[in-house]
Amino acid sequence: MENFIEKLTREQKEEVKRQMKLYTQGVQEIIPAEELEQKLAKSIINNEPLKIKLGLDPSAPDVHLGHTVVLNKMRQFQENGHKIQLLIGDFTGKIGDPTGKSVARKQLTDEEVKRNAKTYFEQFGKVMDMSKVDLYYNSKWLSKLNFEEVIGLAGKITVARLLERDDFEERIALGKPISLHEFFYPVMQGYDSVMLECDIELGGTDQHFNILMGRHFQEKFGKEKQVALLMPLLEGLDGVEKMSKSKNNYIGIDETPEEMYGKAMSIRDEQMIKYFELVTKFTPEEIAKIKANLEAGELHPKKAKMLLAETIVSMYQDEEAAKKAGKHFASVFQQGAIPTNVAEIEWNGGEIASPIDLIMHANLLSSRSEARRMIDNNGVKINGEKVVHKDEQLVISDGLVIQIGKRKFAKIRVKA
Amino acid sequence: MENFIEKLTREQKEEVKRQMKLYTQGVQEIIPAEELEQKLAKSIINNEPLKIKLGLDPSAPDVHLGHTVVLNKMRQFQENGHKIQLLIGDFTGKIGDPTGKSVARKQLTDEEVKRNAKTYFEQFGKVMDMSKVDLYYNSKWLSKLNFEEVIGLAGKITVARLLERDDFEERIALGKPISLHEFFYPVMQGYDSVMLECDIELGGTDQHFNILMGRHFQEKFGKEKQVALLMPLLEGLDGVEKMSKSKNNYIGIDETPEEMYGKAMSIRDEQMIKYFELVTKFTPEEIAKIKANLEAGELHPKKAKMLLAETIVSMYQDEEAAKKAGKHFASVFQQGAIPTNVAEIEWNGGEIASPIDLIMHANLLSSRSEARRMIDNNGVKINGEKVVHKDEQLVISDGLVIQIGKRKFAKIRVKA
Repeated sequence: MENFIEKLTREQKEEVKRQMKLYTQGVQEIIPAEELEQKLAKSIINNEPLKIKLGLDPSAPDVHLGHTVVLNKMRQFQENGHKIQLLIGDFTGKIGDPTGKSVARKQLTDEEVKRNAKTYFEQFGKVMDMSKVDLYYNSKWLSKLNFEEVIGLAGKITVARLLERDDFEERIALGKPISLHEFFYPVMQGYDSVMLECDIELGGTDQHFNILMGRHFQEKFGKEKQVALLMPLLEGLDGVEKMSKSKNNYIGIDETPEEMYGKAMSIRDEQMIKYFELVTKFTPEEIAKIKANLEAGELHPKKAKMLLAETIVSMYQDEEAAKKAGKHFASVFQQGAIPTNVAEIEWNGGEIASPIDLIMHANLLSSRSEARRMIDNNGVKINGEKVVHKDEQLVISDGLVIQIGKRKFAKIRVKA
Repeated sequence: MENFIEKLTREQKEEVKRQMKLYTQGVQEIIPAEELEQKLAKSIINNEPLKIKLGLDPSAPDVHLGHTVVLNKMRQFQENGHKIQLLIGDFTGKIGDPTGKSVARKQLTDEEVKRNAKTYFEQFGKVMDMSKVDLYYNSKWLSKLNFEEVIGLAGKITVARLLERDDFEERIALGKPISLHEFFYPVMQGYDSVMLECDIELGGTDQHFNILMGRHFQEKFGKEKQVALLMPLLEGLDGVEKMSKSKNNYIGIDETPEEMYGKAMSIRDEQMIKYFELVTKFTPEEIAKIKANLEAGELHPKKAKMLLAETIVSMYQDEEAAKKAGKHFASVFQQGAIPTNVAEIEWNGGEIASPIDLIMHANLLSSRSEARRMIDNNGVKINGEKVVHKDEQLVISDGLVIQIGKRKFAKIRVKA
């Protein structure tokens, strides 16, 4: 690669430095950082934006804060004039799993793909300016490849290289079958980068292998290689596992302000700075200051977390909603009061009922066994008092409030 | 599979037995023999011929006796009313090697493929009735597959299964790269069997893995599985290596009667019976008799070999040519005489020349160094007398005969 850095003026060099600092913030790995620097220099000299690719699975459109880690990084590039390429991997979604073994990878119809893409767009709009984003569907080029062209692609990668992917290596070691078609998912992802001619591909560290495929295939097709920019995986509310819907440790960006605020307040103290870095718009300098104040004891962790929670709600709702959610949280959780805007549930189930009956009727938990467990763990209150016996018979009166844990409430309205 | 054998009459059972004995002759492996028996029984009951597939590489149309091993087996099926499916693997030939690494697998044009197929047809016509053969080109279905369909195919086979192929296993062990596209050659061969719905696929033992792919994919596509019928590889004239053009140990079926006969006479004694079994039309009973007579000392090996040589020439030329070639051989090699029909070469190179000049001029050997070696080994005669000195200067006279080894002759005609 040409050395573009040495062609820069002093001001331009400062600009590259500034952007490098910004893009490096919170990043786990840049492969390789020197190339990113060169690309930035080239972009400045030629006055041409860099093309930043993000690949999306069309089957999982529920966006949570874990996803926004890469979205926030995208936004940083966008705010500095670079071009975002959103790639919907609809080809994969449309072909499903030919072995029929994976339920998760079921075939999607064209309509489902489009609908999911639209959902992404609406949600991403809360982080980026979607009017400046280019949207691509990889079925556009992948569905047109014939067998000869597929052979041509396959001729550009070795079996040994593919077997290096962690999960393949592991399955081979355990004697678990890998279906030949699975080799094509990384190949497709690599070929997408050839078609998009992107400069940078963003993803979580779990995309390490697949994103390097882009570099591999771009080189094989005689193109400039993309830089892999890998973001750390955000731990969920449990502080241990990667945030995900299935682990139920997530903050969805479409949740109510109260839910978001409450969940954000349950983030572990030791995760707080990581959240500031990865899911807010705070600059590296501002975050350094918060960190310093926390360490010096000048900022109480609870205050810092309230700032984080308010910031997150502001990003996905607005400031007013964030302030309200903060007040709501303070009244309910800090003072133990019953909130004012509790959902009301009609009741015509008789004058006497067990707490489990009420919980099920109000749809606060999903099963009777779960309700039983919750009572055993002292997690259920009726009118602010702990329920002790699962089978207790309650006299039902209009306005009775059931509370599960800290944040779930329902008010019983007896039908006249 | 249904049990068709038990539905047969006694005569029909005898017929299955007879055919089984015939098809088993000289075979290395039948996978599995029980299924072949069932297929024969089914064919008799339904009065439907079996479909016998032979795949051909379109890039190597020079047929030698090594190839006729499978062709003779084909002919046996054909003579019993079964259907021969010749499959030209033109798709493979047309795509070449996408890595560009293999010179052997260079891309063929449509015309080259057609021309090579025609050459096959002409040559195979010496063994089988080509008017009853069905010809297929696999590009017909393979070139039409799109990426989605390729993924579908790939989803029906595991990486571990493919890595079991001997040469893949070996290369992995040696750390030699396998390009992903190479996995598709056995997959294509298997898919061809799906499309042809063949009952039996014939091939050499070196095709073991690829032919089993046919069984695998037919099953995955819900079809009846083909039986693999694997023929031994024929050793060439050296008695050690597999007969092949590159090893120069072959008898081409398009060679002159004299060449064929002479080469056949150089087959090793211990290979003779194998040749009778694999490349002639002798029945198992006839061959058993020849073998017994040889072992009892009632048939001299030379006589047996003359029968073999004559038989081979008759198959690819005619009886008369075979008889003439036999006489020619007897006169030249057994009596040391100069044959009567020696090729005549015009000479206007002056009155004096070295034996090497003459050999090169008559094109009897391919290089001066080879000619020199041949003289050193006492392998060159001029007018029946051994040449002793490489650099001897000969006086050239009209009608001078040069002889190389036992079978190569040229007569010099001095231009007036």
